[in-house]
Amino acid sequence: MKAAVAALACASLAACATPGDEAGGDGGPEPAARYAFWRPAPVVDAPDPNKVVQEAPAEAWRRIDPADLLVIDLKEGGRVVVELAPAFAPVHVANIRAFARARWWDGAGIYRVQDNYVAQWGNGDAKTELPPGVVRRPPAEYFRDLAGLEVRPLGFPDSYAPMVGHVDGWPVGYDPEEGRAWLTHCYAYVGVGRDLAPDTGTGGELYAVIGHAPRHLDLNIALIGRVVDGIALLSARPRGTEALGFYKDPAQAIPIARARLAADLTEAERPAFEVLRSDSHAFGQYVTGRANRGGDFFQRPAGGVDICNAAVPVRKATR
Amino acid sequence: MKAAVAALACASLAACATPGDEAGGDGGPEPAARYAFWRPAPVVDAPDPNKVVQEAPAEAWRRIDPADLLVIDLKEGGRVVVELAPAFAPVHVANIRAFARARWWDGAGIYRVQDNYVAQWGNGDAKTELPPGVVRRPPAEYFRDLAGLEVRPLGFPDSYAPMVGHVDGWPVGYDPEEGRAWLTHCYAYVGVGRDLAPDTGTGGELYAVIGHAPRHLDLNIALIGRVVDGIALLSARPRGTEALGFYKDPAQAIPIARARLAADLTEAERPAFEVLRSDSHAFGQYVTGRANRGGDFFQRPAGGVDICNAAVPVRKATR
Repeated sequence: MKAAVAALACASLAACATPGDEAGGDGGPEPAARYAFWRPAPVVDAPDPNKVVQEAPAEAWRRIDPADLLVIDLKEGGRVVVELAPAFAPVHVANIRAFARARWWDGAGIYRVQDNYVAQWGNGDAKTELPPGVVRRPPAEYFRDLAGLEVRPLGFPDSYAPMVGHVDGWPVGYDPEEGRAWLTHCYAYVGVGRDLAPDTGTGGELYAVIGHAPRHLDLNIALIGRVVDGIALLSARPRGTEALGFYKDPAQAIPIARARLAADLTEAERPAFEVLRSDSHAFGQYVTGRANRGGDFFQRPAGGVDICNAAVPVRKATR
Repeated sequence: MKAAVAALACASLAACATPGDEAGGDGGPEPAARYAFWRPAPVVDAPDPNKVVQEAPAEAWRRIDPADLLVIDLKEGGRVVVELAPAFAPVHVANIRAFARARWWDGAGIYRVQDNYVAQWGNGDAKTELPPGVVRRPPAEYFRDLAGLEVRPLGFPDSYAPMVGHVDGWPVGYDPEEGRAWLTHCYAYVGVGRDLAPDTGTGGELYAVIGHAPRHLDLNIALIGRVVDGIALLSARPRGTEALGFYKDPAQAIPIARARLAADLTEAERPAFEVLRSDSHAFGQYVTGRANRGGDFFQRPAGGVDICNAAVPVRKATR
């Protein structure tokens, strides 16, 4: 390794193009090793993020529309609830609503659990006749127009996207130059299984992230929402032993009793959730607190947080 | 949200202090929303990272010293193997070797599994008499001097550290100004459970990361290594229902039959592993490939990867 300690971080907003060393030699990295960015100073005595969420006023929360909640009841008991994101993948979300209304997933199963990656469920190849209203080849809803979105920038550098932030309680990467925004593959986020390009999947096969954020999938797959309750029912499962974590024996799949939109459940069965509004004062305080952990345990606040380690707070709603 | 789309990314190395909008208003972020950094252009047709690893020549691998392998055999069967990092936490690692030689963990258990966070094991409060040679209050080995380390910079921005890269096959954050380097809390990395400051823990209670990288723990806890085999034996467990994921009933703890250094096992019992050298050409190709996934599935290479999503390749060694 010849190019040790090549670049310098810029501690101020002053423009700093770091010359760095030439990263030569076999083991050296691409010239990418030279980069510079501005970082905020760490905040000492930042607010406790848990306390911020606990004390956030009622108006800082938005209720999730029951038409945007996919409720998956497992045969063994337990419920996984997914918040859908029609603003980002409208055709796929419409498909998912049609699948739920046609009882597509009743009797389906969780057939793939890959460690540090995803748990996936659906019918596999068991059903071929799509329900009415399902679009067989949706457009590639891997991103959407940035125009029209009000983004709250996270305020810290990201390893993947030019910018990251939040839109209406959703984490996004965005590119002001290209005018695009997209959901990020964070823990518990749900995407559409697909085959090779240009297929985008119907939404009939879904996966949830159960490991470190596989952000390389951003812009390559349609994300349709996130698990807001019951993620451990997916993550705390035996890993599949076949390639990509598929279960070897179909009988190992964890059976789904039914999957419905909350809007189609009776009042008594219907769950309700609220999301902390990302345009609220409390949310800003929460992010600052996540980026600068304090209290009796932490010795040194990080002065930064990645988009997936500041999970958007969600809570069960009182009726 | 008043400060939509505040900052611009800089697509070139040219110095660019982005003026951005003033991020005013309740929901707006701190001025941190204004940042600028240089990003490398995405690489089209980058090497397939899996293929790079498969085809890496023998000299690109380093064999792990058996004195640096902690082998944990579970009572139910199955083996978790931890590579120790004496270059980063020498006193804690010396303690861990002394614990293993004193059979400290024989009969201990995995007593905490918190979803998207950590699995933790040890004796809890069951043993109080420390074995000979164990330092009761090790120094705070949360970082070390950067001097003397040969770092291969990753080449992409990081949300936490001024710089990130690899040293001898270990992922590090580093700060050239402060002259420090530290291991990063990535998936499967192992740290020392501790109480409140200024306690640093003895190494008797250890945890492994089983979720999205909790990088806010960097510089606040001594990391002592990483699980190189058997991480799913920790991650695919029922989550504890008590606060912080502790099991409610001690009987729920997963019993450890024994924990030994590989060096203290017989030849027949001793596992052997190799790590891809981070100063090898293959490693650079691997990182480029992880940052720019291609092939038939990916539509668009990310042009970046975070330090924890380019896991250092480790393989079982032939004897």
